[in-house]
Amino acid sequence: MVSGTSEGTGRLPLEEKILKEQLRPSAEDRVYIQRVADRLLAAIAENGKAEGMVVGSIARNTWVKGDRDLDVFLLFSPEMPREALEAEGLALARTIARKFTNTFCEKYAEHPYINATIDSIDVDLVPCYNVASAAHIQSAVDRTPFHTRYITEKINGLVDDVLLLKRFAKAGGIYGSDQMTEGFSGYLCELLVLHYGGFTPLLAAASEWGPHLKIDIEHHAAKEFDEPLIVIDPVDPRRNVAAAVSIDRMAEFVELARGYREAPSEVFFTLPEPRGVTRDDLVEIISKRGTALYAITFATPPFIEEIVVPQLKRSTGAIRDLLARSGFVVHHAHYRMGTVRCMLLFELLNDALPPVRRHEGPPVWNRLNAEKFREKYRDATLPGPFIENGRYVMEVPREFVCAADLLTSPALLNVGVGRHVRMSLEKDWCVFEGADCWQEEFAAFIAGFFSRCSPLVRITRGR
Amino acid sequence: MVSGTSEGTGRLPLEEKILKEQLRPSAEDRVYIQRVADRLLAAIAENGKAEGMVVGSIARNTWVKGDRDLDVFLLFSPEMPREALEAEGLALARTIARKFTNTFCEKYAEHPYINATIDSIDVDLVPCYNVASAAHIQSAVDRTPFHTRYITEKINGLVDDVLLLKRFAKAGGIYGSDQMTEGFSGYLCELLVLHYGGFTPLLAAASEWGPHLKIDIEHHAAKEFDEPLIVIDPVDPRRNVAAAVSIDRMAEFVELARGYREAPSEVFFTLPEPRGVTRDDLVEIISKRGTALYAITFATPPFIEEIVVPQLKRSTGAIRDLLARSGFVVHHAHYRMGTVRCMLLFELLNDALPPVRRHEGPPVWNRLNAEKFREKYRDATLPGPFIENGRYVMEVPREFVCAADLLTSPALLNVGVGRHVRMSLEKDWCVFEGADCWQEEFAAFIAGFFSRCSPLVRITRGR
Repeated sequence: MVSGTSEGTGRLPLEEKILKEQLRPSAEDRVYIQRVADRLLAAIAENGKAEGMVVGSIARNTWVKGDRDLDVFLLFSPEMPREALEAEGLALARTIARKFTNTFCEKYAEHPYINATIDSIDVDLVPCYNVASAAHIQSAVDRTPFHTRYITEKINGLVDDVLLLKRFAKAGGIYGSDQMTEGFSGYLCELLVLHYGGFTPLLAAASEWGPHLKIDIEHHAAKEFDEPLIVIDPVDPRRNVAAAVSIDRMAEFVELARGYREAPSEVFFTLPEPRGVTRDDLVEIISKRGTALYAITFATPPFIEEIVVPQLKRSTGAIRDLLARSGFVVHHAHYRMGTVRCMLLFELLNDALPPVRRHEGPPVWNRLNAEKFREKYRDATLPGPFIENGRYVMEVPREFVCAADLLTSPALLNVGVGRHVRMSLEKDWCVFEGADCWQEEFAAFIAGFFSRCSPLVRITRGR
Repeated sequence: MVSGTSEGTGRLPLEEKILKEQLRPSAEDRVYIQRVADRLLAAIAENGKAEGMVVGSIARNTWVKGDRDLDVFLLFSPEMPREALEAEGLALARTIARKFTNTFCEKYAEHPYINATIDSIDVDLVPCYNVASAAHIQSAVDRTPFHTRYITEKINGLVDDVLLLKRFAKAGGIYGSDQMTEGFSGYLCELLVLHYGGFTPLLAAASEWGPHLKIDIEHHAAKEFDEPLIVIDPVDPRRNVAAAVSIDRMAEFVELARGYREAPSEVFFTLPEPRGVTRDDLVEIISKRGTALYAITFATPPFIEEIVVPQLKRSTGAIRDLLARSGFVVHHAHYRMGTVRCMLLFELLNDALPPVRRHEGPPVWNRLNAEKFREKYRDATLPGPFIENGRYVMEVPREFVCAADLLTSPALLNVGVGRHVRMSLEKDWCVFEGADCWQEEFAAFIAGFFSRCSPLVRITRGR
């Protein structure tokens, strides 16, 4: 680990300007949030059932101006049984929240927790075990206090670098370890800055990154990983902090780093404006591209993003394969989880095929199967079987001569869509074609589907 | 080797009938051909420069009624230099031919030879070396006398079986070792009958054949072979007599054998009537199949079939690959060498594509190439590059949006068509579409292109 200060990292005036104007929280912000945190901690201490601890970027001082997310953990004794923790932890969180507001909601990650808005701050109250070391955690949330202690202890002098990196990643569309983004979490940003000793040396290094890069700050990796980017958690030698980072988000970070180093500019820190296409735009796009567009939509399964989005990804792949197996060439496919409906979108190079297709049979040498095959097609009306490379080949009627027939058929239920997606499809799904794919809720998704430029192009050429 | 007689092989009455009515030459035929042969041999003996020898099926007594091909070899001393053999051999052949007819022509296989029609018999006069053993041959023709001696010595009692097999193979469309047929030569038929001891046991065995079957009658193979069917030449341990047999002709023989054994019938010995499609037929076929048909035709290169046909095969494969690479899905492709023009015929599942295509670039990690790629597409009008699986991908205008544009483009000259095909294409070629592909000369070829059933279907179901 290289340690560095802002002076040593050769910060650009441009970066200082961004930090000052956009990223560093003001003294008032700090005081304001600290006051909310203090009141919550006081209420927890007063109650006495658990120890309170502020975690996350606010505790670490690495929050970006405007962030109003306060994570307060309720640390219980590890002796308490898990069911008791869930019940008592949640009860305590509710009690605390109720002291400050009448509206809060229960959420569920690995454990249930309470989310409430208190003095316009978005507060999570999360029960966890107060274990002796990260090696003894019973669930992922138990690890969080260790992250906070680790970063708080080491981050001095590099806080600005973390702020720059977070905004740089967010502007580039690669910030967030959620399933849709598959990008860089806040903790990962902190560790990368720590490891390379600042934002500038990180970008210099990242310009030369390759897949399966492994960073092990504490030199204690206790497991093999095969993800594209491997950053061993300093508090847990068996965990890859970068597990969520896809190969494409990693590559995009590399190219953003190169692009910024070549021509640093404020646009690399400018958050993209959400842009959607109109239905008329879509008509024009399709006519210009000459491709065939199909959308499948269905009711969003009533589960969290972490469960639904991977299933959408898998379903899109499975349907893409089904289309390909059926002779329809998929040019591009993507998916989106909306609040009410989900959309799988497919752009095809061809959506109509002749009513005949080849069907490959067994090798002629395999006598038993050869005779079964012959018997099966004895009265076929199409020519065949004939022999190609020693195998029987038959021409058979093609089941789906157009893509819409395939996508509206029950065949969709027989490919590897996820469990909850299947349950939703079993109720109903809709297929749209061409400009009819356009829907208000998916206007931005469709825009991204067609303009899918690399972040560098998006940023530097405003596409 | 199993030896057998017609009694021991359990010949069917049907087979006896075919033999009697169609296959065995009559006594008059035999006397007639023998007389022509004797006169030729006498003329050669009188001249005294070479030794005359009748070879081929007439010498071996394995010719099918109606065959009028008489092969007479002129055996010269192996001491004579090759150039002298070519010059003197051809001169002698001419001298002999001239004694019987005024019209003859010079042909060229490995050596030049003379072909003449003498008393309505098609006579080849072929100079060769009279070597001591097949191990000392200087060219392929020198081997022929050894084949004749070998078969003549062993074939007693199995002549009828050879006649049946030859007709069975011919009716099934698999007789002939020429490049277009890729099937069974007469000598191969003789050896198979010898090895299995008759037509009936051969078919019983062939029903269970698999690829890479090796038959080595003299147990003297001196080389490894990887052809689908391997029959070591009894007179040359380094030669596969079945080298020309393709995997498909072999499989077709297997299925014909099975079909005949299941339900023996005269149709298995009935020569197919040449059938062609009319232009109207073709219009109907195409409309029913819904596919897109394209023909390329060009002047037949002025070389023998052995040279041209393999080039047509290679060219068809290369253009098939070119079509596939360009996004056009080839359902079936075939080729035909006509006397004036050659035709390559392609049936496509799609012949029009959108004006956009994906173009894959280097991995982002490969910095030098990544930057070259970026630079190249800096001002592209289509979206991109974007990143997929860590590589740059660009959308670029598609060069050929319809198959006809591709097939008429010079791209055709840049794929692996053979040398002589290329020379012909460089002068000119034509592309036809749909029913315009029909041409009188190729009517039978086009019929076979679409009805390409296995021989068993063709035979038993009259398709």
